[in-house]
Amino acid sequence: MADKILSISRRTRRTPYSPRVEAAGVKGYTVYNHMLLPTIFESNEADYWSLCEDVQVWDVSCERQIEVSGPDSERLIQLMTPRDISRAVIGQGLYAPLCDETGAIINDPVLIKFAADNWWISIADSDVRLWARGLARGFGLDVKVHEAAIWPLAVQGPKAQQLVTRVFGDEVPGIRFFRSKMLEFRGKAMMVMRSGYSKQGGFEIYLNDPELAEPLWDELFAIGADLNVRAGGPNLIERIESGLLSYGNDMNFNHNPFECGLDAFVDLDAEIESMSLPALRAIKGKQVHQLVGIVFDQTVEFDEFGVESNGQQVGDVRSQVWSPRYRKFLTMVMMKRDFLNHNTSVTIDGITGKIVDLPFDFDAIT
Amino acid sequence: MADKILSISRRTRRTPYSPRVEAAGVKGYTVYNHMLLPTIFESNEADYWSLCEDVQVWDVSCERQIEVSGPDSERLIQLMTPRDISRAVIGQGLYAPLCDETGAIINDPVLIKFAADNWWISIADSDVRLWARGLARGFGLDVKVHEAAIWPLAVQGPKAQQLVTRVFGDEVPGIRFFRSKMLEFRGKAMMVMRSGYSKQGGFEIYLNDPELAEPLWDELFAIGADLNVRAGGPNLIERIESGLLSYGNDMNFNHNPFECGLDAFVDLDAEIESMSLPALRAIKGKQVHQLVGIVFDQTVEFDEFGVESNGQQVGDVRSQVWSPRYRKFLTMVMMKRDFLNHNTSVTIDGITGKIVDLPFDFDAIT
Repeated sequence: MADKILSISRRTRRTPYSPRVEAAGVKGYTVYNHMLLPTIFESNEADYWSLCEDVQVWDVSCERQIEVSGPDSERLIQLMTPRDISRAVIGQGLYAPLCDETGAIINDPVLIKFAADNWWISIADSDVRLWARGLARGFGLDVKVHEAAIWPLAVQGPKAQQLVTRVFGDEVPGIRFFRSKMLEFRGKAMMVMRSGYSKQGGFEIYLNDPELAEPLWDELFAIGADLNVRAGGPNLIERIESGLLSYGNDMNFNHNPFECGLDAFVDLDAEIESMSLPALRAIKGKQVHQLVGIVFDQTVEFDEFGVESNGQQVGDVRSQVWSPRYRKFLTMVMMKRDFLNHNTSVTIDGITGKIVDLPFDFDAIT
Repeated sequence: MADKILSISRRTRRTPYSPRVEAAGVKGYTVYNHMLLPTIFESNEADYWSLCEDVQVWDVSCERQIEVSGPDSERLIQLMTPRDISRAVIGQGLYAPLCDETGAIINDPVLIKFAADNWWISIADSDVRLWARGLARGFGLDVKVHEAAIWPLAVQGPKAQQLVTRVFGDEVPGIRFFRSKMLEFRGKAMMVMRSGYSKQGGFEIYLNDPELAEPLWDELFAIGADLNVRAGGPNLIERIESGLLSYGNDMNFNHNPFECGLDAFVDLDAEIESMSLPALRAIKGKQVHQLVGIVFDQTVEFDEFGVESNGQQVGDVRSQVWSPRYRKFLTMVMMKRDFLNHNTSVTIDGITGKIVDLPFDFDAIT
């Protein structure tokens, strides 16, 4: 299928970095939280190697920060997630599914305890602001919920620490995973967290002044020239190889955390006020689907994403990519568990794929 | 700026019509409610003339239908909008802003009373499902809220009535604006409403069986060949000429209905339980901004959408297009009312534009 143009308008919001993203030669975008997310600069594969070997700067402004503040902020956050947040420390990020009263996933953000009575929900692609505001209004909670004026910039890749240290100073290497420090750029303090949507290591800079967007971008590129710094974005190849889930792709509001292998983020035994926990306790172990990997030696063409066996649809392909590193076609598929109980492979158009757990274990596969 | 590719994935959902849309040669999409919305087939201008002179079929599946059912459904709908819905009849559509407790616009859907205790919210681009569910949960309302399995197909243009009548029969011409009938296609009854996002006239078919998507599309094209039926989509030129607002473009969650000229859809004196009415009563007449048109004789380049006067930003360009019919550059701009009180024009790079009310009155302009 030929490439399609994205019709861009004010509704597909630009970011303070957009002029620099365009100057860097962005070729493709997706729309994420009603905002432009750069996806391709050179090509998916060239961008992949740059990310894995050097360092990239990503405009991830579309990771909107839904700020929840006020006396009931922690109560509202806990209500929304089945993960126990009570031991979070200030500056910490927690990956946590948000689930409704049936256990269905509303979003899978990183929850950040920014201060006492001040949480940021660093969201995937759905309007959590509306969900949080609706709940707060209905329950009569004493909170404010709004989309904060924050534009995250990710620095990802094996040389990311070197680059971020050059800009933000010697405190950077001491930041642990999903922890942060308030560090200064041009005299303005902003949160720098060790995090990001790749497994190549790196940081996210939570820029809080749009006037500093272009200066920050420029400084990273000027000071990182010898590190081969490039503009990039979340990379389809890298994120699938790494088994990173994407809300809306790998799962959506029809799925619960167990179906996606997110069991570790559901604290079933915690004594917390979470709206989804009663339902999740009841459905644990009874889910109909399971997200798994299916690995093929060559590219497979699915008919509207269906995986069939003996004329029955047994799975739904959610993500797929050719891995240039492992020379395998990697798919993430929501499969019927009933089928998984009796099968370890599927055959599509004569090509047999091996069913594996996620994340992919390439030592076992190759 | 060169065209950008849209990176398409499962998150940017396909529709049951997508195979036909692709076969028809779609060149561009936008993403709307996490779903592909075709925007360009031949070109913006060629598509415009086809829409205004003949008839087009639009895949507007992205107008998702948020179905609210149960004993408290009307109460929840009324809570969400400041428009009095109490006199709606079954099968009727009502354009109505949804507003939060501050009066800010959450969405501007068409509310459809589908049956007693069963409303459809035909939404613009924000996750109203989450807002409605959050409110329902918090207020403890006895409703079900979900995204219905409905894929609207619009037939728009001066020959739309002829075409829809050929497919759905002689009851079609008797349908009044924003009224509907349940009519059959291949033995399946579905709602057909006189509505749609153009001022060229037409209908929306609320398809309720995805298996019938391609047969319906094919029938419209086969039976409408002599009418010059074409594939199309909401057209930027036509909708701006017609003064149709677009949520996320012309206004967003920072604006209230008065700022957008939606005063007629706020029933200030109604004795209804609407969460936004108290705030809207308080701010009526005090809004800081007003959405107006500014008309130029030639195309103007704005710097990041700002309208400046004497070095001060006085407006924010929300939509803009060259009108090939009127040979004017039409802009929809959120202006400071203070400026409007003292000015009837603005000058950008030496080109003076006339400030006018919306919708545009071309008899007065040309």
